[in-house]
Amino acid sequence: MNIAILFGGSSFEHEISIVSAITMKKVLKKSTLTYIFVSPDRKFYLIDTAKINSKLFSSGEYKKSKELTLRQGGFFADGMFGSKSIDVDVTLNLIHGRDGEDGKISSMMEFFNIPFISPRMEASALSYNKLYTKFLAESLGVKTVAYEYLSKNDERKITMDYPVIVKPVRLGSSIGVSIVKEASKLDYALDVAFEFDTDVIVEPFIEGVKEYNQAGCYTSNWELSIVEEPQKEEFLDFEKKYMDFSRDSQVLAADIDDAMTSKIQESFKKIYNSLFLGSIIRCDFFVVEGEILLNEINPIPGSMANYLFEDFEGMVERLFKNLPKEQKITVDYQYIHSIQSAKGKA
Amino acid sequence: MNIAILFGGSSFEHEISIVSAITMKKVLKKSTLTYIFVSPDRKFYLIDTAKINSKLFSSGEYKKSKELTLRQGGFFADGMFGSKSIDVDVTLNLIHGRDGEDGKISSMMEFFNIPFISPRMEASALSYNKLYTKFLAESLGVKTVAYEYLSKNDERKITMDYPVIVKPVRLGSSIGVSIVKEASKLDYALDVAFEFDTDVIVEPFIEGVKEYNQAGCYTSNWELSIVEEPQKEEFLDFEKKYMDFSRDSQVLAADIDDAMTSKIQESFKKIYNSLFLGSIIRCDFFVVEGEILLNEINPIPGSMANYLFEDFEGMVERLFKNLPKEQKITVDYQYIHSIQSAKGKA
Repeated sequence: MNIAILFGGSSFEHEISIVSAITMKKVLKKSTLTYIFVSPDRKFYLIDTAKINSKLFSSGEYKKSKELTLRQGGFFADGMFGSKSIDVDVTLNLIHGRDGEDGKISSMMEFFNIPFISPRMEASALSYNKLYTKFLAESLGVKTVAYEYLSKNDERKITMDYPVIVKPVRLGSSIGVSIVKEASKLDYALDVAFEFDTDVIVEPFIEGVKEYNQAGCYTSNWELSIVEEPQKEEFLDFEKKYMDFSRDSQVLAADIDDAMTSKIQESFKKIYNSLFLGSIIRCDFFVVEGEILLNEINPIPGSMANYLFEDFEGMVERLFKNLPKEQKITVDYQYIHSIQSAKGKA
Repeated sequence: MNIAILFGGSSFEHEISIVSAITMKKVLKKSTLTYIFVSPDRKFYLIDTAKINSKLFSSGEYKKSKELTLRQGGFFADGMFGSKSIDVDVTLNLIHGRDGEDGKISSMMEFFNIPFISPRMEASALSYNKLYTKFLAESLGVKTVAYEYLSKNDERKITMDYPVIVKPVRLGSSIGVSIVKEASKLDYALDVAFEFDTDVIVEPFIEGVKEYNQAGCYTSNWELSIVEEPQKEEFLDFEKKYMDFSRDSQVLAADIDDAMTSKIQESFKKIYNSLFLGSIIRCDFFVVEGEILLNEINPIPGSMANYLFEDFEGMVERLFKNLPKEQKITVDYQYIHSIQSAKGKA
């Protein structure tokens, strides 16, 4: 299988996308990888797989690579003697944050008829925005953590008790997130969050809450990862999460009973089906008083959460063979024909 | 002002988009128009403004036009001696239905940094899907018509009383919509709707309900159209709506009192602000027992609802001057630099 790894992007998580992408080399060993970098100014570059390393990007040296153009059917390298298609079987969207998770890349892949692994547009729009994730989960019967919603120009007032956690609505990787222990500190936390986004949600911060992560996808069957209990400090900050993005070896399953495991799996399936077909996602759940609450959907998890699966590469191949098909629409111009013939008679 | 009119698309509403686009010639008289056609197979063609007519498309003759490519900053015509940018000030997205209203075009315009008039991605994803529109409206305190939601594989059972109206979740222009007067006819209506979409909503069909349309946008001020009471038969079918897409002269305001007008306007503003900044939309409301209910959001209304405005062309220009700006993200590679220096020391 020849997989294009699409990474980078105009995103606060540009750099961790590079880390995720390089990690794929250690994880997708049997496949041929074709690296396509989206620069911070959103140009596409074909990166030599043999030479890929993080310095290539931080030094700006990538600009010497071949630039690519998107057209019907794929990426193309334009040259003196015409345009040559980059030959791959499937594109794996590994752009974290803006561009990758907000639906832009999925939109383009769909428009240009390129087979791709990623949440589709609707799934992206709903999971990239933490407020819309709440709407979605509630409509599917999956409970979420209580919240209040604030826009940049709203009065800075909340009604819930402290401590609270303040999150920009649209970012991942804990960027702009703060824990606020008393009312006097709320203002500063909001300043920080509003630097990154126009909207925030505020949730109760639950000390020592049990957190469990479930990743997976639907191929021709459900393929669910082990349930992981992430190691936690107060919460993972950006640098700690960053290290997470380069993980490539398996972790141990959380020490929970079968009943809890299956409750978590059922919640995952409710969220995934059918909106997330075509993607590998990770859902992070809290367990509070025996109840499963969805904390977050990671539509493009760090290094695709490969370390939670026994046969990650096999799963990617099976997913590629079971991608959702776009509905075919035939345009037959019958209305225009009928207007023309009506005019002809007049 | 030089406006690119983007129209066509891989959509059940491809043909009405052509009608909308041609209508713009009669409406945007002071501007220079550059027509860019998205063919049913999603290629971009530069159409000669002087020669545009519906037959150009139904005959397939458009294929002789210059094909364009999307790159950073705009559309480009590639030739023997390099690539030439198509010079326009702003792109008006006039693709109804899939591609235009679902967020694909907005995604691409944003990715390639092209100033455009259209709902942005999130606004598109939420308004293209009638179920998500309900979530959105409810979260903003705007009431909607009661509904039940059915997926293709769900049991075909509803609990509400007949008559009901069955609508595919993702289409406009009444495509696939049926009124069902008794339980025995539900199955057939669902068959029709599921031909177009995997999901449907069912709503009570309210005989003789008062319907009012409000269009508008926010430039540096609110610019709201007159409130129109659309002429109704049982409901507008596709062919009747189709004629609507070529309207280019003003209609009369609905005969309602100021209190009702301002209630409708307030509901419109709640929906529009701030999600729909950068777009001209039309909201269709029902009034039931004095209460305003959102029926539908038309993110790209037929011929941009120009006939509801006194100074449509001036408004387009003011909107162009007040388009929302994308947040700037600077990538400084500080994390990669810090990893490299840590490695260097080791």
